[in-house]
Amino acid sequence: MKEIKVGIVGLGSVGQGVLQILNENLNSIESKINKKIKITGITAKNKNKKRDIKIDNYPWFDNPIELSLNPEVDVLIELVGGEDGIALKVVETALKEKKHVITANKALIAKHGNHLINLAEKNNVKILFEAAVAGAIPIIKTLKESTASNSISAIYGILNGTCNYILTSMERDGVNFNTALKSAQDLGFAESDPTFDIEGYDTAHKLAILSSIAYSKEINFMDIDVQGITKIELDDILAAKDYGYKIKLLGVSKKQNNGEVIQVVRPTLLPMDSNLAMVDMEKNAIFIRGNFFSEIMLVGPGAGRLPTASSVMSDLFDLANETNYPALGITSNKLEENIKSESINSNRYYLRLFLPDVSGTMASITNTMASYNISIDDITQRISKKMKDNNLVPITIISSSTDVKSINKAVEEINKNNYSPLTPNIIIIED
Amino acid sequence: MKEIKVGIVGLGSVGQGVLQILNENLNSIESKINKKIKITGITAKNKNKKRDIKIDNYPWFDNPIELSLNPEVDVLIELVGGEDGIALKVVETALKEKKHVITANKALIAKHGNHLINLAEKNNVKILFEAAVAGAIPIIKTLKESTASNSISAIYGILNGTCNYILTSMERDGVNFNTALKSAQDLGFAESDPTFDIEGYDTAHKLAILSSIAYSKEINFMDIDVQGITKIELDDILAAKDYGYKIKLLGVSKKQNNGEVIQVVRPTLLPMDSNLAMVDMEKNAIFIRGNFFSEIMLVGPGAGRLPTASSVMSDLFDLANETNYPALGITSNKLEENIKSESINSNRYYLRLFLPDVSGTMASITNTMASYNISIDDITQRISKKMKDNNLVPITIISSSTDVKSINKAVEEINKNNYSPLTPNIIIIED
Repeated sequence: MKEIKVGIVGLGSVGQGVLQILNENLNSIESKINKKIKITGITAKNKNKKRDIKIDNYPWFDNPIELSLNPEVDVLIELVGGEDGIALKVVETALKEKKHVITANKALIAKHGNHLINLAEKNNVKILFEAAVAGAIPIIKTLKESTASNSISAIYGILNGTCNYILTSMERDGVNFNTALKSAQDLGFAESDPTFDIEGYDTAHKLAILSSIAYSKEINFMDIDVQGITKIELDDILAAKDYGYKIKLLGVSKKQNNGEVIQVVRPTLLPMDSNLAMVDMEKNAIFIRGNFFSEIMLVGPGAGRLPTASSVMSDLFDLANETNYPALGITSNKLEENIKSESINSNRYYLRLFLPDVSGTMASITNTMASYNISIDDITQRISKKMKDNNLVPITIISSSTDVKSINKAVEEINKNNYSPLTPNIIIIED
Repeated sequence: MKEIKVGIVGLGSVGQGVLQILNENLNSIESKINKKIKITGITAKNKNKKRDIKIDNYPWFDNPIELSLNPEVDVLIELVGGEDGIALKVVETALKEKKHVITANKALIAKHGNHLINLAEKNNVKILFEAAVAGAIPIIKTLKESTASNSISAIYGILNGTCNYILTSMERDGVNFNTALKSAQDLGFAESDPTFDIEGYDTAHKLAILSSIAYSKEINFMDIDVQGITKIELDDILAAKDYGYKIKLLGVSKKQNNGEVIQVVRPTLLPMDSNLAMVDMEKNAIFIRGNFFSEIMLVGPGAGRLPTASSVMSDLFDLANETNYPALGITSNKLEENIKSESINSNRYYLRLFLPDVSGTMASITNTMASYNISIDDITQRISKKMKDNNLVPITIISSSTDVKSINKAVEEINKNNYSPLTPNIIIIED
């Protein structure tokens, strides 16, 4: 029986998960791939850190570069994380040495994916990264292999478990953002420094990778418009609920009628009974639309030691079965440039304005909206003690379908005309 | 550029769908697989049947066997349907001639899969059937490739669009089974003879295939306990709703603690806010549970010309990329026998009994249930004019957790003791 020789760089949560899977299910795995799996070596920053998994049985390497150069390694699994530094170095080294690479590192692929995939192709080896997006959900494989004959028109992803947990908790428990964040941290669904997640960058990394595969475009993370969830208040969530919506942080990319692809990360109002809105807590989900398959949605755990390691293992299965798909579903020389483009779509919008409690305010709103050709589907004056103290009232509006420029200008003008000191919340609605 | 030479047998809905996809997206498909696709020949029962797709441009074969023997065919796509007859013949012929086979034929794979896969392996070619289960949903690939490192413990599938449409329509529109069936037929979601779908056999075919991959067991369709939806009445759906449940036809397989696998097709009460319960209308969904990835759900169109053809195309992509996975995720010589086994699980049950409207009935029920160690979580006497005329009252019960044998015996005894002429409805609850 042939042997696959594996080197593992990084023994944090996911790295230990991979070892645990190999411990628990080795016989069945080797039987399925009809090959032996040999761990040639492991390495991490600190050998003696307390770990849940025993690592004494595996050859230890102090130097990760040495492991990625080792001729006894066929497949290098990079689980260090970070978009540059040691992760980039070991991956580059391994590819140049004609070793296959598996990585769970979304930041690395979002930033250096084009270069690394090109390098892999030149050296006639594979770089695989199912675990980089949405944990255990097989979304990379689905887009690359299963839906590949289609023209994809849209991807909507709940791609960050931290944000989804926080938004769910705000809605279910009626708590504000900070309380929900704290409970997410207590439960291990949020990092101690959650900036990267709650500001939307993690979602953007994942979206950049998915968009590239879906539309056969180069990975372009830098040009994604990113908006996180830190400005979402409990009052927005309650108002949205009144209107029959839930707020979710979505990574969205769409192929527009003009052929251009927009990529945005933003809080979005989704109809409460839509499939995506019902994906709660720390779960992830990806909804894709294609011209032949219509609509598919995949739901599952978007993070966690074993779910993510399970996807690392699926990449190892692919290598064992000599799967020959290009990393992004098409060889990199055929990828089109992915240029930032503006949305030409029309959407309804949810607005929460904070305006002086004087007569004429409502008229001012409707007049200004009308001057931008925006009808109002609903306008509701809310109650807020805090605002009352400032002599301001929160007003929520559901606009009719319009473009993003018009709505922004209209809101800006309303705010100016009414001398409001507070920035309004503008959230897109996907119906 | 290399060429893949394809023969297509069967030009019904899915066959035409494949041609349509190749018409519309050929450039992008060939660019992704880096090979030319050549249709060597097509064949169907009737050349001159009115079709939506022009077929004049493709070489016509009168004899499907001749096409499957043709040396200019690398891949034979079988889309005739039917578990025996011409479908079986062309597939066997092609495999023996060392041609790869793609089929959407669940009945064929459920009945002859073990033999055909063995034949393919002997001849060193592939037989692929993503389109046989759940239309566009990539569930075969997910189980075979993405979750392969896991031990799967359960599969719950809404695998038949006809049944799901009927049950949804009964619930939403408050209509009885026959009205819902009629509307399904009018909308093209049910065949003129729907027996195979509504009696659960189509679901069983698909379940047999999924179970085989999930648990590395031989395909065993014959031993599945199959119960369809024809006995579900609107009153059951309304009572279930009262209790916070929806009724879905599920294909369920579970690996029990004793290592045995149970396979059943049956109507099931699912909590209204569970992910699977929310899959409505003609949609399909598969929920899988594994020891590492936890829970994944895939939702999408389970049938239809283009969704199903999209999955046929995904198999063609696999062949173009020389994917080397065994048909069931493991070579057939390593599959374990799949012996019928009895459920050792405990579940709650929903009962609807029709009992004489006399004093002592409730006491008789509770006493009998108690004698089988079954508590009653809810018991409700319902109103029904029809029953009233017979001096019977419908009584719905939610039992506590118990095994299937006890509940069946208890219900039998209650019915006998109360001289009820009507068969009760017993539906399992998955909480």
